[in-house]
Amino acid sequence: MKPLIFITNDDGVNARGLQSAIRIARRFGRVVVIAPEVVQSGKSHAITMFSPLFLRHVRSEEDLEVYAFSGTPVDCVKMAFDHLLKDQKIDLVISGINHGSNSAISVLYSGTMGAAIEGSFYGSPSVGLSLLDHSDNADFEAAEEYGARIVERVLAGGLPLPLCLNVNVPVLPTDQIKGIKVCRQNKGYWKEEFFCRQDPRGKDYYWLTGDFFNAEPEATDTDEWALANGYVSVVPIQVDMTDYSRIDPLTDAFGN
Amino acid sequence: MKPLIFITNDDGVNARGLQSAIRIARRFGRVVVIAPEVVQSGKSHAITMFSPLFLRHVRSEEDLEVYAFSGTPVDCVKMAFDHLLKDQKIDLVISGINHGSNSAISVLYSGTMGAAIEGSFYGSPSVGLSLLDHSDNADFEAAEEYGARIVERVLAGGLPLPLCLNVNVPVLPTDQIKGIKVCRQNKGYWKEEFFCRQDPRGKDYYWLTGDFFNAEPEATDTDEWALANGYVSVVPIQVDMTDYSRIDPLTDAFGN
Repeated sequence: MKPLIFITNDDGVNARGLQSAIRIARRFGRVVVIAPEVVQSGKSHAITMFSPLFLRHVRSEEDLEVYAFSGTPVDCVKMAFDHLLKDQKIDLVISGINHGSNSAISVLYSGTMGAAIEGSFYGSPSVGLSLLDHSDNADFEAAEEYGARIVERVLAGGLPLPLCLNVNVPVLPTDQIKGIKVCRQNKGYWKEEFFCRQDPRGKDYYWLTGDFFNAEPEATDTDEWALANGYVSVVPIQVDMTDYSRIDPLTDAFGN
Repeated sequence: MKPLIFITNDDGVNARGLQSAIRIARRFGRVVVIAPEVVQSGKSHAITMFSPLFLRHVRSEEDLEVYAFSGTPVDCVKMAFDHLLKDQKIDLVISGINHGSNSAISVLYSGTMGAAIEGSFYGSPSVGLSLLDHSDNADFEAAEEYGARIVERVLAGGLPLPLCLNVNVPVLPTDQIKGIKVCRQNKGYWKEEFFCRQDPRGKDYYWLTGDFFNAEPEATDTDEWALANGYVSVVPIQVDMTDYSRIDPLTDAFGN
């Protein structure tokens, strides 16, 4: 039987990047999509605790079922594994293709990567795919081509679980991409500027807008370097956030 | 001059746990609070990208200003560091006291810890405080006492930055807590059960509800063990999610 591939994203069920992910997956298997009803960019690993969630069937084609869900990307993954597909083995999770980068510390803010990480918790290999172009009319050709290569390799098996990959694709024609670089998450952070406006009643409101600061622009083994130098970046993700180097000194500091 | 302490949480500006955090902080310094207008539990590291954000001044007392913000916990931190307090040095961030545990993998889903982590990105030591009781009428006495001890030690200085602590307090009277245990994040995951209900028009909807599965119940150096054995757990947090052990094998697998 063809492998079962589950797809979600954070740009919502109508995003063009989702169609690219579906095209990739249909080359290799049966596909079930549960994508958010509305855009969920920046939703990180958020789950919905205090609202009821509605699941809507959108369309069926051969080996393809598409649903929309009223929750976050992580809610979509949980709905797949713990409810809709709970009696089936999901062979792969694809999240994306995201409109915009999820490299470096953006992995933490990203709804795309929140969903990919959640998928890996259920024991399925998970691939988050992002293209460094957040425009609605982005060209997904290279991302689709490299996404398919990575999906094909993962489905071929032999890569130990858990497996979660943060894949980012530079904005280049396919034939100008130099290849795939497996690398580490670049250190850095986002600094925001709040744009202040006034509503029609004279009340101030704010828009969040920010810039990424690369804390190690010289490093050549990071995702930022790979992307800036024409490679597709692949960062293997783990979720132990313990800073082991601090356990002994803090044990002394707190007197236990 | 007294140190400046910034406080936020994920249970919202009206939560009782927030008042406990304010009481802790006022023992040591001047306090500014920007807390979410409404409950933001489970909001992880989410930011608000597609809605305008409103800031509301709630009250002033001596060395205390309280604001409510219409965004997520991470939005509150960004509003403090990048706008409201951007010309001042923030000496400490406290997030909490959360109504409910944020131990083990819950660090990833938690709005409380999202905010604490975000605070540490701006170079301030950050402490996320959580009590293992999510009821509205939880007894915060022990959490307040141990929270104050930890805050006092952090403010005393000498702990290298970045510093972000995930502090969880068991549900015990203060004198039955055995002390503070600096430890690592327990491995495990949440598995959900979707409760299905019908709305008045006969449409199905779902509530997310889950249980934590401890993947290493025998381990004695984890936050789960510490909490189950009467200790306050303190996990130092870092945000490099790269799985370094996978870089070489995946480099081979992807043929570069």
